[in-house]
Amino acid sequence: MTASGIYDTDLEKTPANHEPLSPISFLKRAAEVYPNRTAVIHGLMRLTYLEVFTRCRRLASALVSKGVTPGDTVAVLAPNIPAHFEAHYGVPMTGAVLNAINTRLDAATIAFILDHGEAKVLLVDPEFAAVAKAAIAESGRDLFIVDIDDPLAPEAEPLGEISYEAFLETGDPEFSGIPIDDEWRAIALSYTSGTTGNPKGVVTHHRGAYLNAIGNMMAWGMTPHPVYLWTLPMFHCNGWCFPWTITALNGTHVCLRKVDPAAIYALMKSEGVTHFCGAPTVLNMLVNAPEELRDGLPSGIKAMTAGAAPPAAVIATMEGMGIAITHTYGLTEVYGPCVVCSWHGEWDDLPMDERAALKARQGVRYHVVEGLEVMDPDTMTPVATDGETIGEIMFRGNVVMKGYLKNPTATKDSLSGGWFHSGDLAVKHPDGYVEIRDRSKDIIISGGENISTIEVESVLYKHPAVLEAAVVAKPDDYWGETPCAFLTLKDGQSATENDIIAFCRDNMAKFKVPKTVVFDDLPKTSTGKIQKFILRERARNP
Amino acid sequence: MTASGIYDTDLEKTPANHEPLSPISFLKRAAEVYPNRTAVIHGLMRLTYLEVFTRCRRLASALVSKGVTPGDTVAVLAPNIPAHFEAHYGVPMTGAVLNAINTRLDAATIAFILDHGEAKVLLVDPEFAAVAKAAIAESGRDLFIVDIDDPLAPEAEPLGEISYEAFLETGDPEFSGIPIDDEWRAIALSYTSGTTGNPKGVVTHHRGAYLNAIGNMMAWGMTPHPVYLWTLPMFHCNGWCFPWTITALNGTHVCLRKVDPAAIYALMKSEGVTHFCGAPTVLNMLVNAPEELRDGLPSGIKAMTAGAAPPAAVIATMEGMGIAITHTYGLTEVYGPCVVCSWHGEWDDLPMDERAALKARQGVRYHVVEGLEVMDPDTMTPVATDGETIGEIMFRGNVVMKGYLKNPTATKDSLSGGWFHSGDLAVKHPDGYVEIRDRSKDIIISGGENISTIEVESVLYKHPAVLEAAVVAKPDDYWGETPCAFLTLKDGQSATENDIIAFCRDNMAKFKVPKTVVFDDLPKTSTGKIQKFILRERARNP
Repeated sequence: MTASGIYDTDLEKTPANHEPLSPISFLKRAAEVYPNRTAVIHGLMRLTYLEVFTRCRRLASALVSKGVTPGDTVAVLAPNIPAHFEAHYGVPMTGAVLNAINTRLDAATIAFILDHGEAKVLLVDPEFAAVAKAAIAESGRDLFIVDIDDPLAPEAEPLGEISYEAFLETGDPEFSGIPIDDEWRAIALSYTSGTTGNPKGVVTHHRGAYLNAIGNMMAWGMTPHPVYLWTLPMFHCNGWCFPWTITALNGTHVCLRKVDPAAIYALMKSEGVTHFCGAPTVLNMLVNAPEELRDGLPSGIKAMTAGAAPPAAVIATMEGMGIAITHTYGLTEVYGPCVVCSWHGEWDDLPMDERAALKARQGVRYHVVEGLEVMDPDTMTPVATDGETIGEIMFRGNVVMKGYLKNPTATKDSLSGGWFHSGDLAVKHPDGYVEIRDRSKDIIISGGENISTIEVESVLYKHPAVLEAAVVAKPDDYWGETPCAFLTLKDGQSATENDIIAFCRDNMAKFKVPKTVVFDDLPKTSTGKIQKFILRERARNP
Repeated sequence: MTASGIYDTDLEKTPANHEPLSPISFLKRAAEVYPNRTAVIHGLMRLTYLEVFTRCRRLASALVSKGVTPGDTVAVLAPNIPAHFEAHYGVPMTGAVLNAINTRLDAATIAFILDHGEAKVLLVDPEFAAVAKAAIAESGRDLFIVDIDDPLAPEAEPLGEISYEAFLETGDPEFSGIPIDDEWRAIALSYTSGTTGNPKGVVTHHRGAYLNAIGNMMAWGMTPHPVYLWTLPMFHCNGWCFPWTITALNGTHVCLRKVDPAAIYALMKSEGVTHFCGAPTVLNMLVNAPEELRDGLPSGIKAMTAGAAPPAAVIATMEGMGIAITHTYGLTEVYGPCVVCSWHGEWDDLPMDERAALKARQGVRYHVVEGLEVMDPDTMTPVATDGETIGEIMFRGNVVMKGYLKNPTATKDSLSGGWFHSGDLAVKHPDGYVEIRDRSKDIIISGGENISTIEVESVLYKHPAVLEAAVVAKPDDYWGETPCAFLTLKDGQSATENDIIAFCRDNMAKFKVPKTVVFDDLPKTSTGKIQKFILRERARNP
C-alpha cells in the first residue's frame, strides 16, 4: 500500500487532529469531568480526582525543578500507596520513565537495577528504607532521594533530604507537564527476574500503556466508576496497567500496604469494592481465611487472576462467595495481562470441573493485541489447533514492549520474526484458546513472583559444600509453586537442609529461597545436561 | 522533548511491537474468539461472526479483483442492511475508502458526490435504484455497479452487471486483506451538507475510527455482547462508528431498512435489543407510537441521542418505559458523537425538569478526545465558564478528521490554530459542561438531517417569480426543525405557497423542501445583509 492520490493530498497531521496517545490524558479528563469524585482511598485519607491531579502536577513540576528531563529514570520503592499511584502520572508528565522496583528484592539486585536503569531519583517508602540504604550504598548512582511520608508506614530514619509531601509543596499545582511528542516514548521500565542471571529491563511506551489500559476494561467488561482494591503490586508491570485503567473509568483506587485477608475483607465491605486482581495465591489466601471475615461481603465483586491457572476448588469457593473470576495471562513484556479466558455464556451450565478446566486455559488475545499464536519457534509456523501439539506462545501488536534496556541482543532475539517470543510453551485448542503446558525456561512462579532457577542455583553453587545444584518448581497449594533444590555435595563435605536454607536466606530475596532441599544424584543427558523434567517429576512425587 | 539517551537506543519499532490501529482488527478478533455468535440479524436471516468475516473477505477480494486499489473510493447507497455493514469492513480491507451516501439526497447531489469523491464502485440497494440511475446518468464517472440483492427490498430493475451475492461469490473467502501500512490512511469519506452550496467531503482515518469506536463504548459504559438495533443511518458518519463499536464488543447488529415504530418495538422484543441510537425525532416517534406496541418491552434498553437536546417530556416517557437516554453531541468532522453529557449519580434525585435541563447539555469530551473548549474564535482563548458567555465549540485530538477532500482552504480554516472549529456556538457551565446556544451558520437540523439554508435559497432564487429568499429553521415538535422560507416576489409576478413547495420538490431532496412559505419583507442590516435572527423569531411566533 503506498501513498496515493486524493486522500494523501492536503490532508496532513496538524495539532488539531493528531496527538500522541498517553494514559496521562485519562487523569486530566477525570479531573475535568469528575473533579469531586473520590480517586484514592488510603486508610482514613480520601483524595478527589482534582486533588490527585493537582498532586501529580506538583510532583511533575518538583521533579523538573530537580533537573529531571525527558528520558531520565525515576525509581520508586513502595507498596500500593497514594504516592506510588501518583508516580504513575507525575513521572510520565515530565517525560521521564517510571521504574517501579519490586519491594521483595534484596539490596544487591536493587543496586543493580538502580545502576542499570540509571535512576536519577528514588522515591522510597519507610518500610523499605533499610534495603534501599544498603542498595544505594552498593550502587554507583548519585540519587536524589525522596522519603515518602505515609502515616500507615512503620517508622524509619529518613534516607534523603526531603519528604514526599514537602517535595510536592515545592511543585507548581498548575504545571501543565512536558508534552509527550511521540507516543513511542518510554513510559516505564520494569525489571523482570528473567531466567539468566541479572534481571532485564523491559521498556514500555505511552502508546502501549494507553491501549492496554483500555484492553483491560474491554477484556473485563468494565463500566464507569469501579472501586478497585490494590491487592496486586503496582511494581508488577505497573499494576498490570490498572493505575491507568481505573482512572480512565473515573473509578476509585483503594490502597493497601499489605496483602492481608482481614484488611482485604474489611475494605471490600467498608469501601464497596467492585474489582481486584491478584495471583492465585491471593485468591487462595482469601478462600482459606476465617469464614467470619466474609460475613456481609457485598456480592458482585470481580477478581482477575493471572500467573497460574486458578484451581477448581478456589473458583468454586470464590463463586460461592459471589466473586466472579476472570483468568488472564501475560508477561511484563506485554504490559501485564493481554490474554484472557473470554467466557462463553453456554459454558455456564457445565459441571464445576468442566468449567474449571475451561477457565484454566489462558485463552485468547485482548482486543488491543493484534496477534496471539502458538508457534514452532524454528519454523515460525503455527502449531495444529488440536490441544496437543506444543509450541511457543508468541505475541504481536501495540502492547508488546519497545525492548530490553541496553540489551540489543536480547531485544532482537525476543522480537525476531515479527513476533515477541514469550518463552512459554502451550497448546492451542480447536476453539482457538491457548493453554500453557510448560515453561521453556524453567522459571518458577511462587506467589505471583517469578523466580529464576539459574539465579538460585548460582547462589547455591557458592556454598562451600555444594558440588552440583539444580532448582525446579515444586507444586504448592498455597504458593502455586516453590523452589525445590536438588544438590550433590563435594566429597568429604557435609551440609543439612537447614544449613543450605540459611545460606540462601543470607544471599537472596526471601521469596526465592528453596523451601525444599533434596540431596540426590542429578540425572543427566549423554552430553552432560541436567534433565530438569525428571527432577520436576521427583519434586512433584517425592 | 527530544530523543534522548538510553530509551531511544536499540528500541526501534518492529513488526512485533507496532501495528497501525484499524477497526478491521475488531472483526478479525470477533471471528476468532466468537465465531459462532450471531453478528447480524436481518429479517429471518442470521449471520455468525465467522460468516460475516468470510463475506467481508470475499467482498474485499472481489473488489481487488475488479481493480480497486488503496486510496480508491467505493460508494454505497443503501439502508441499514447487512451489505452496508459488510462494506464497513470489506472496503477498508482493500485499502480503499468507504463513501456511504445519504439515501435521502436527490440525484444531482448524489452525482456531485460520485464525481467529487471519484467513486470507482457503487453498491446500490434496489430501493434507491431510480435515484442512483439518474445520478449515474448525470455523473461523469465510469462506475462498476453492484446491485445489492436484499430479500426485504422492493423490486427494481438491476443497474449493474452483477448482484452483490454473485459478486461475493467471485471473492476469495480466505483473502487476508491489503495491510494498512499507516493508521493515518483514509478509511471513510462522508459528505456533510455543509452550509455553503456543494457538500464537503469529510475524510476520516483508521486511527480515529479505531479510537472513536472505543470512545463510544467508554462514554456509554458498554459491556460485551450488546444487541444493537440499527435505527441510526449507517450513512451518518458511518453510523457514528457503531459498525466498529458493536463488533469490537462481539455484539449483534439488528438491521432495519426503515425507521418504523412498529418494526422497532417488534425487534426490540423479539431480538432482545439492548442499545439503539437516533436523533430526538426517532425517540419522539417511539414515544408517540400507539401504546399497545410497547407491551412486553424488555427493560434496561439504552438509547443514545444526538443532534438536538432531548425534550423533558421525551426523557420522562422513555424513562417510564425503562429506556435510559444518553445525550451526546458531535459532527461528521469528529466521527459522529464525541461529546457526552456524562451523568453524575447525585443528579438522579433531582426533579424531572432539573434532570432534563442537565441532560439537555451537550456535556464533556469523550475519553478519546484530547481537548474540548468553547473559545472566542478571534483570540482563541476559552470563554469564561459562567454558563453565559458564548463562544465557538472547538475540538482537538485523534478523532478529528484528516480534513475536507480536495478542499485545502476549508481544511486549513477548519483546523486553524490547533483546533477544529465546529461552527457551533455554546456556553461552558461552571462544572465544565458545554451547552449549545446557537449555530453560527444557520444550519437547520430536521429529523436528524442537516439542511443548508443557502442551498435551499439557491433553488428558490431559480423560481421565476422570486425576488429575494431567506430560509431559517422553524421549531417543530416532530422534526425538531423544518425549513421556513421567507420570500419577496418580483413586481408583477405572483406565486402561491403551493407553487413554491411544488417547485422545490422538483429541484431538491424532499427533506429539504420548506414546510412553510411566508411572503413578507426581509429585514436587513444597514449594509443590506438579511437579518436571519429576526426571521427565526417570526418563524417561531408567526
